Amino acid sequence: MAHITLDPQLPGIRGPMAFRPETARPLNELAEVLLRSDNSLSRGDRELIATYVSSLNDCFFCQNAHGGLAQHYLQCDMKFVDDVKKDYAAMPLSDKLKSLLAIAGSVQKGGKNVTPAQIENARSHGATDREIHDTVLIAAAFCMFNRYVDGLGTWAPQDRQVYIDRGPRRAEEGYINFDLYK
Amino acid sequence: MAHITLDPQLPGIRGPMAFRPETARPLNELAEVLLRSDNSLSRGDRELIATYVSSLNDCFFCQNAHGGLAQHYLQCDMKFVDDVKKDYAAMPLSDKLKSLLAIAGSVQKGGKNVTPAQIENARSHGATDREIHDTVLIAAAFCMFNRYVDGLGTWAPQDRQVYIDRGPRRAEEGYINFDLYK
Repeated sequence: MAHITLDPQLPGIRGPMAFRPETARPLNELAEVLLRSDNSLSRGDRELIATYVSSLNDCFFCQNAHGGLAQHYLQCDMKFVDDVKKDYAAMPLSDKLKSLLAIAGSVQKGGKNVTPAQIENARSHGATDREIHDTVLIAAAFCMFNRYVDGLGTWAPQDRQVYIDRGPRRAEEGYINFDLYK
Repeated sequence: MAHITLDPQLPGIRGPMAFRPETARPLNELAEVLLRSDNSLSRGDRELIATYVSSLNDCFFCQNAHGGLAQHYLQCDMKFVDDVKKDYAAMPLSDKLKSLLAIAGSVQKGGKNVTPAQIENARSHGATDREIHDTVLIAAAFCMFNRYVDGLGTWAPQDRQVYIDRGPRRAEEGYINFDLYK
């Protein structure tokens, strides 16, 4: 049971969003700009960064909700996303994306863990300032979203297929004008 | 030097905000709603929670910028804010605020560290669901802001008096319509 009285129909972040629409608005706008708006990083790559950070923070709801979106965008299976979470360096991802995942992993530990060598490595694989900025902010934002979801003790569907089935719909509806109850 | 090319005139979060106004907008709106809008928790108490979490995350810019605001609102001195950061339980704060600072400290470690006993303690001192919600989200949001500021390697004025002198102006201007360069 959640730590505060939330609508029991709504899993994960949806409960607190219905409870406090004033904060839900900027949170959703931030997610839309970072994860869905036009960007030289694909939606799939950005959702994969969000999923990876959420797995480092051990947030079941976020790593599966965003993992479902990553799987949809990247047209891969659940095992691929799980393997990225476990050992992205061993996976068939671009060197640029691997270098950005390394930066995201450092941000998750704390901002000061990002090293000049990690930035240099990302640049050597073609990452732009904007891509480095967005990677740092996606990772930082999921350190917030994950704590929000788990710090309030929200519930999450345990059947991981649920999130995969919802991926295409969530990709289409986006983060701004979606129905919390659907 | 910052990890990406930011306007060298702008310290802390102001550099990345000028670099990427599309994300600055929801970030500032979130800060305004959480820290400055009408709330049963005073602005001073909310800035103190933000300062405490920023000190746990060792973010020099945020703990001083928000510490300067807390000091202004609470009409206290820098030593008082520093002592709260070191050992809030020993300070002359309300039991309710102490119970909320305990929850914020757990959120900083990770959302799952918040315990039912901490929530029960906060309730026994009169904390409402809304106050518990806002405390969790303030703490989570500063786990983002702190990582954003330090993850991009931004610079910060080292003279702590600068932040205290700016407190009254920053309190008045708020988080939405302020001039990044003033």
